[in-house]
Amino acid sequence: MAKARKQKKLDHLKRVLAALEAGDTAPVHGILAELHPADIAHILEGLPPEPRATVWAQVDNQHMGEVLLELPEAVRVDLVKLMDDQALVAAAHALDTDDIADLIPDLSDEVIAEILFALDKQDRQRLDAVLSYPEDTAGGLMNVDTITVRENIALEVVLRYLRRRGELPEHTNSLFVVDRDDRVIGLLSVAKMLTSDAWTRVSQVMEREVIKFPVHTADKEVAAAFERYNLISAPVVDENNRLLGRITVDDVVDVMREQAERERLDRAGLREAEDLFASVWQTVRNRWTWVAINLVTAIIASRVIGAFEGTIVKLVALASLMPIVAGIGGNTGNQTTTMIVRALALGQISEASMRALFAKEIRVSLVNGLVWGGLLGIIAYILYGLVYLGIVMTAAMTLNLLLATCAGVAIPLVRYRLGRDPARGSSVLITAITDSGGFFIFLGLATLFLV
Amino acid sequence: MAKARKQKKLDHLKRVLAALEAGDTAPVHGILAELHPADIAHILEGLPPEPRATVWAQVDNQHMGEVLLELPEAVRVDLVKLMDDQALVAAAHALDTDDIADLIPDLSDEVIAEILFALDKQDRQRLDAVLSYPEDTAGGLMNVDTITVRENIALEVVLRYLRRRGELPEHTNSLFVVDRDDRVIGLLSVAKMLTSDAWTRVSQVMEREVIKFPVHTADKEVAAAFERYNLISAPVVDENNRLLGRITVDDVVDVMREQAERERLDRAGLREAEDLFASVWQTVRNRWTWVAINLVTAIIASRVIGAFEGTIVKLVALASLMPIVAGIGGNTGNQTTTMIVRALALGQISEASMRALFAKEIRVSLVNGLVWGGLLGIIAYILYGLVYLGIVMTAAMTLNLLLATCAGVAIPLVRYRLGRDPARGSSVLITAITDSGGFFIFLGLATLFLV
Repeated sequence: MAKARKQKKLDHLKRVLAALEAGDTAPVHGILAELHPADIAHILEGLPPEPRATVWAQVDNQHMGEVLLELPEAVRVDLVKLMDDQALVAAAHALDTDDIADLIPDLSDEVIAEILFALDKQDRQRLDAVLSYPEDTAGGLMNVDTITVRENIALEVVLRYLRRRGELPEHTNSLFVVDRDDRVIGLLSVAKMLTSDAWTRVSQVMEREVIKFPVHTADKEVAAAFERYNLISAPVVDENNRLLGRITVDDVVDVMREQAERERLDRAGLREAEDLFASVWQTVRNRWTWVAINLVTAIIASRVIGAFEGTIVKLVALASLMPIVAGIGGNTGNQTTTMIVRALALGQISEASMRALFAKEIRVSLVNGLVWGGLLGIIAYILYGLVYLGIVMTAAMTLNLLLATCAGVAIPLVRYRLGRDPARGSSVLITAITDSGGFFIFLGLATLFLV
Repeated sequence: MAKARKQKKLDHLKRVLAALEAGDTAPVHGILAELHPADIAHILEGLPPEPRATVWAQVDNQHMGEVLLELPEAVRVDLVKLMDDQALVAAAHALDTDDIADLIPDLSDEVIAEILFALDKQDRQRLDAVLSYPEDTAGGLMNVDTITVRENIALEVVLRYLRRRGELPEHTNSLFVVDRDDRVIGLLSVAKMLTSDAWTRVSQVMEREVIKFPVHTADKEVAAAFERYNLISAPVVDENNRLLGRITVDDVVDVMREQAERERLDRAGLREAEDLFASVWQTVRNRWTWVAINLVTAIIASRVIGAFEGTIVKLVALASLMPIVAGIGGNTGNQTTTMIVRALALGQISEASMRALFAKEIRVSLVNGLVWGGLLGIIAYILYGLVYLGIVMTAAMTLNLLLATCAGVAIPLVRYRLGRDPARGSSVLITAITDSGGFFIFLGLATLFLV
């Protein structure tokens, strides 16, 4: 069915494209009306700017807000530009307050003012509450539509209240039990409500061990806790344990997806998720930082080689062999870093364990250096018939792998101690060190012992 | 509180370590008894082999199964080796059948036979059902403990049944409505049960638009659908739409985490998640494939340079400048690939859009080549005072960036057409092409026009 659904979606896209090509936008509206907002977003993302605008005009007004939320930033900003203030206010009005909060950064001050004006007092306060916390904290993630109950009432009363209320907020798997001061003292699971006798009191069936998040908890930590403890929803509290809101697993899933996406972009040196159909100029701008950084490190490595040009002229084989020493160093350094980042993510590696880990990595690089370096030494000897060239090759490989290991351990560790993300940018730095270091070690040894 | 919890966990670890150092294992048992299985797993993962075995011996028998499930493969295998058959059977017996299925691959045939023998007939059938599907499909992910109802009964009847049953399977946010032949025809959400009148019929409040997964759906697709449609649980069906089981969001979260982890390992060329405290020999084995592959590509690049040694002897500046051309090519090629992989993941990029994307990437690389190549040409001219060297440098950069773009588009596209993961291993291939290609273009142009 997932396949069938994909097929169905492709069909939708094809029908949309066919209608656009025929210059007939009438059927598009009908096709879109059948689709989930996430699927409409998907279609829009896959279209170049012009047909995208045409299709966007066919989306129902009351679905526009939801579709915007499902789109990546770059595409959303473009579509928001196409809408007049009135349409934006209408789109926002169809959303929950916490979802409006996610749209706010892309809107102009006038539109924000109009949206606030159109809300009733309670919703305005809710929106203010969500907006007052950074996006990447528990406060930024939370919804404010929570259902609370007191511990001394009977389940029957709760059930009556829920029936009168008529609808539960999405993903409600438990109600929050609070005291007189709105402090969270327990969770009443929906399962317990369904399976317990109606005259049981809340206090008899509620769970008292509640995993809750202070409002400033980082979203990454929230995601890790949801994953570890298999949560569906959890309360967000202030420093006095007072209930502020509720985080649900669907938002956490989004956080996880964004993290993975961010990592992928970082790795490739892309500043942000590009609109696939961004202009050449936008694209160049999004990528230039990385190219510039690599240019600088490459020029440094080039200058290290430049310092040994006298040696290379005397023994040109060095020019062919030096990239091997540099390249393998970068790769093993990155392997080491991946392991160290993992150890740091575990969060409970003691000093002693870290030392043991470092000692192991050093030994691994020694083995690799001697085995692979030895092999390379033999190859170098076979190619150029110089025994000493082979020995220098082996020694340089071993030393550069040791350097790679030290860099691979030190860089994420230092970044971690400084309170930064240990993984981010480490690959560029390690490669820079092992490139320049590899050239220096290899050509330096050659200068000392060969020419 | 997440911070407080982390702190608390660190305290637990410290107390465990202190007890171990004092040679007194008695308090360890008490500390572990207070902890969630996921937290015990976390502590075990962060310990070297010997203390790990000591701590493991202090884990309550009935929690061992859950802790094993939370551990990464490498650590789990080691701990399973420490347990005798009886302990393993006992640990498995404390788990749900679908969780037992996850442990099975690490157990010996004798233990598996004993576990099957200890199960009652229904559970054995359930286990068989889960085991008969590959781990990375909807069938491998599903639980078999589903609650089904018929559409023509009143909610009151359903509620009475649930109260008699006494407990709901974890993460039950809806019951499945099935017909006489066990075919899924709707979902009855728990929220609706709580908020509707007791005499309403199931058919009046059930949702008929059900997102369900055929049993062979790939786990990645399941995860994508859960994310897109904000699901908590969904039915798994056979080809006749008959209910086989149920996938819950916590398993999907695990799939997402494993995917991200797999990606990270792939990127660093690690075959599998290493136990942090694996022996040097195990570690070397886990990493050698990647080192070997890189060695081969590096040797090929080295032979390309080797073919131009005559040119380098005549103009040694080439040796210093050539790594720059090769390096920048690899980086921009990987940027392009990241975008193409993203486009493919969207799944609905039409042929025409793909052509537009390729044309854009070519234009971006032309701009980058002329701008950065031009800058490098000027630098080369300043360093070596040769105008033509600068021109060759600019030309080589531009050509290598075009090559990088073609490789960056072609490699993921070809892998995708062959039904493979478009991202996997592409970085190694692109770097290999842009290294050898960059050296060839730069040294070739130099041979033609400079010496």
